[in-house]
Amino acid sequence: MIDMIETKIDLVEMGKQAKAAGIKLAQATTEQKNAAIMAIADALEANRETILAANKQDVDEARTNGTDEIWIKDRLDLVKRMTGMIEDVRKVATLPDPVGKSFDEHTLDNGLKVSKRRTPLGVLGVIYEARPNVTIDVAVLAIKSGNAAIMRGGKEAMRSNLAMIKVLRETLESCGLPADIIQYIESTDRKYVGEMLRLHQYIDLIIPRGGNDLHKLCRENSTIPVITGGIGVCHLFVDESADLDAALPVIHNAKTQRPATCNAVETILVHEKVAAAFLPRLVDYLGKDGVTFRAEPQALALLKGHEDKVQLAGKDDFDTEWYALILSLKVVNGLDEAIEHIRQHSTQHSDGILTRDMTNANRFLDEIDSAAVYLNASTRFTDGGALGLGAEIAVSTQKLHARGPMGLEELTTYKWVIIGDGHIRP
Amino acid sequence: MIDMIETKIDLVEMGKQAKAAGIKLAQATTEQKNAAIMAIADALEANRETILAANKQDVDEARTNGTDEIWIKDRLDLVKRMTGMIEDVRKVATLPDPVGKSFDEHTLDNGLKVSKRRTPLGVLGVIYEARPNVTIDVAVLAIKSGNAAIMRGGKEAMRSNLAMIKVLRETLESCGLPADIIQYIESTDRKYVGEMLRLHQYIDLIIPRGGNDLHKLCRENSTIPVITGGIGVCHLFVDESADLDAALPVIHNAKTQRPATCNAVETILVHEKVAAAFLPRLVDYLGKDGVTFRAEPQALALLKGHEDKVQLAGKDDFDTEWYALILSLKVVNGLDEAIEHIRQHSTQHSDGILTRDMTNANRFLDEIDSAAVYLNASTRFTDGGALGLGAEIAVSTQKLHARGPMGLEELTTYKWVIIGDGHIRP
Repeated sequence: MIDMIETKIDLVEMGKQAKAAGIKLAQATTEQKNAAIMAIADALEANRETILAANKQDVDEARTNGTDEIWIKDRLDLVKRMTGMIEDVRKVATLPDPVGKSFDEHTLDNGLKVSKRRTPLGVLGVIYEARPNVTIDVAVLAIKSGNAAIMRGGKEAMRSNLAMIKVLRETLESCGLPADIIQYIESTDRKYVGEMLRLHQYIDLIIPRGGNDLHKLCRENSTIPVITGGIGVCHLFVDESADLDAALPVIHNAKTQRPATCNAVETILVHEKVAAAFLPRLVDYLGKDGVTFRAEPQALALLKGHEDKVQLAGKDDFDTEWYALILSLKVVNGLDEAIEHIRQHSTQHSDGILTRDMTNANRFLDEIDSAAVYLNASTRFTDGGALGLGAEIAVSTQKLHARGPMGLEELTTYKWVIIGDGHIRP
Repeated sequence: MIDMIETKIDLVEMGKQAKAAGIKLAQATTEQKNAAIMAIADALEANRETILAANKQDVDEARTNGTDEIWIKDRLDLVKRMTGMIEDVRKVATLPDPVGKSFDEHTLDNGLKVSKRRTPLGVLGVIYEARPNVTIDVAVLAIKSGNAAIMRGGKEAMRSNLAMIKVLRETLESCGLPADIIQYIESTDRKYVGEMLRLHQYIDLIIPRGGNDLHKLCRENSTIPVITGGIGVCHLFVDESADLDAALPVIHNAKTQRPATCNAVETILVHEKVAAAFLPRLVDYLGKDGVTFRAEPQALALLKGHEDKVQLAGKDDFDTEWYALILSLKVVNGLDEAIEHIRQHSTQHSDGILTRDMTNANRFLDEIDSAAVYLNASTRFTDGGALGLGAEIAVSTQKLHARGPMGLEELTTYKWVIIGDGHIRP
C-alpha cells in the first residue's frame, strides 16, 4: 500500500483535541464560519495542482492493482470533480446557519420562560470508503454546523485525502480557528475503526458513508449513535388508475438517470388490471436504453416476445439493490398486495405510487413507512440538494434523530433554555 | 424468586408480533387510541384489588429478603401510587396526538410539494428496574404515540407487572386493538436483555429506565439506538451579582425537594467575591433541613464553626450524584472557572447560573452544553410534566434524536411526503 510509516495513533488524544476544538467552534459566529469556508474554497483552488497530483498517485496505484476503470472514474478520480467540489464549498457558506436558532418558545403559567436552542452535536465521527470528495463535503458541513470531525477514509484515496486535510487544517488555522476541528486517522489499520466506534466519551455521532457491510459493522460495534442509511431497495407501484403515459418517463428516470445511487428504483409493482397493457410498453421504453428485467411468473407471462430483455426473477431478486440497469417486475392484485410486498422487501428508503385515485394515494402515503414516500414522481428526488436542504451529509433510513436526507440542521441538537426569577418547584 | 416456570421465550416471535401490531396501531385514529387509554384507566380501577394483591406479594418477598424499607416504599409499593397512576393514564388521553401532524410544508420551484409527516417509531424496547408504575406509564405513552412496546421489568416487581400487563392486553383486545401492542418478557433471565438489545430487525428504540449500570449495559451491547440519560451531576453557579436572598430558596429546592431524582443539584459553585458572605448562610439555611456538605479547601476555610455539617471534599465528590441530602461546595474565581468546572464534571443534564448580570447569564446559557440550562431557577424543573410536555417517558442526556425530557412527540419520527405530477429529476 501507501509508502508511509504506520505510526501508532492515539485516538483518545485525537478525541480530546476534537472535543476542545469543537467547543471553540461552537462559539464562533456565522460570519467567522463562513469566512473560513470561503477561505477553504480559495485554498483548494490555490492547491489544486498539489491535490490532483496526490490524487493521480492514488489513481495510478488503483490502475496498477487492476481496479475496475469505471469504479476509478466514478469514485476515485478528482480531475473532473474538483471544480464542482469547490463550487459546492462556496454554496455551503450561503446556507442558513442552524446554530443558535431558538424555537418552541413559551412561558409557563408559573412565569418560567422556556425555549429550545439549536446547538452543534459536538464531534462527528465519519467513516467512508473511496470518494475523496467526501473529505471536503464533510469538513465544510461540519464547520458550518459548528461540529468538529474525526474522519477515516478509504485506503485507496489516502494520498488524496491527506493532501486535502492539510489544506483544510492550514486554512482553519489561518482563519483563527483550531486546526483540530478537522482530524484524519492516518492509518489503513482497521483496528482504529473499532477503537473509533467505542470512543463515546469524545465522539457524539458516527456517520458511515459506504455500503451495507460498513453500516452493519458500525451498527454492531458502535457504542456511539450511528446514522445508518444509504441502502435503497426502492419501489414504484403502478396503480389501476395511473396515467400510463406519464408513468413511463417517471420509471425511466427513477431507474436510468443514475442507477448506482440509493434512490434509484429497483422494483416496479403493476396492478393486474393494467399489467397487460403496461408491462410490454415499459420493457420497450426502458429496454431501448439498455435496461433488462427480472419478472415473476405472472409478469413474465405478459411479456412474450421480450425474452431478449426479460428473465424469470430469482429468489432474492426482489431484495436486491441492483446498482445497475436491471429492474424487477411483479404483478399485484391491488393496493393491499402492493403495500404488503413493499413492507416485506423495502429498505424503507424511497417508495412511491403512480395513481390518479386520491383515496389509494393517501392510503399509500400513510401506510408505507419509508423515509420518503412519493405520489406521481421519480424516487430520484430523495436527496438533500433536490429537496431544498442545500447540502447533504447522508441519507438516513433509520428512524431516530433524522430520517431521509440530512442537511445542516440534522447535524445539530438542541438544549432547553429555562429562565426564571428565583423559581422553585412546588 | 418468583414461583413461575421459566419457559423458553422466543424474542424473534415477540418482535414479529410487536411489529405487526404496531403497523395496525399506526393506522388507528386519535379517538380509537384515546378510547383504549380511557378503557385502560377504567380496567385498572376495576382490577385494583387484584393488582395490589400481586404487588403485596412482591413487597412481602422484598421484606423477607431484607430489602431496605425506604426503597420498598419509594420504588416498589403501589398502594399509595395507584390512584395517581390511574389519573395520569386519563391525562394522557387528553394530550395532543403527535401522529400524522404535517410540518415543513413547501413547494419546490419545480412544483413538487414537499412536507414531513409525523409517524410512530414502530416498536419500543423498554428495560426498567423496580418501579412497577413504569409498566403503565410506558404502555399508555406507547399507545398514544402509535408505538408497540416490548418491556422487561425488574425481577422484584414481576408479579405486579404481570398483573398489570394482563389488564393492559385484555383491555386493548376489548377495544379492537391487538393485544400484542404491549408485550412483556416474562423471565428474570438476563440473557433475554442481551437478546433484546440485538433485535434491531424488530425494535426501533431502546429506552433504559434505571441507574448508570443499566444505561452502560445498553449503550455497550445494543445494535439498536439507545436513549441514555437520567444521570445527573447538576450544578448551580452563584455569580458575583446573584441575589443572595433569592439564591437560598432556589438551592434549597434544587437539593431537598426530591434529592433522589436526577435533576436534584449536587454541586454549588460560588464566586469568590460573595463566597464569604454566602457560604455560611447557605450551610445554615440547608443544614437545618438535614443537608450536609463536602467543601473543597477554599470553601471549607470560609466555613469555620460549621464543622458539624461540613467536611473536606474527597477526590471523587465533584463527580458524584449523591441521591441524598449532601451538597458539594466550591469557590471559583469567576464565570470562566465555573464554566470550566461544569464542563469537566457535569453529566450534561441540568446546570444553572444565579446572576443579575445578563452578559454573564447569556454566556453561561450559550456555553454550557447541557440538556437544560437555567437562569435564576431550580434545576428541579427538568421534567416533562414541569416543562409542559404533559408526560415523560425519559430524560435524555445524549444529543441524538431528543435531549432533555421526552414526551409523546419524541416517541415519533417523520417521513418525507413528496407529491408530484409526473416529475422526473433532470
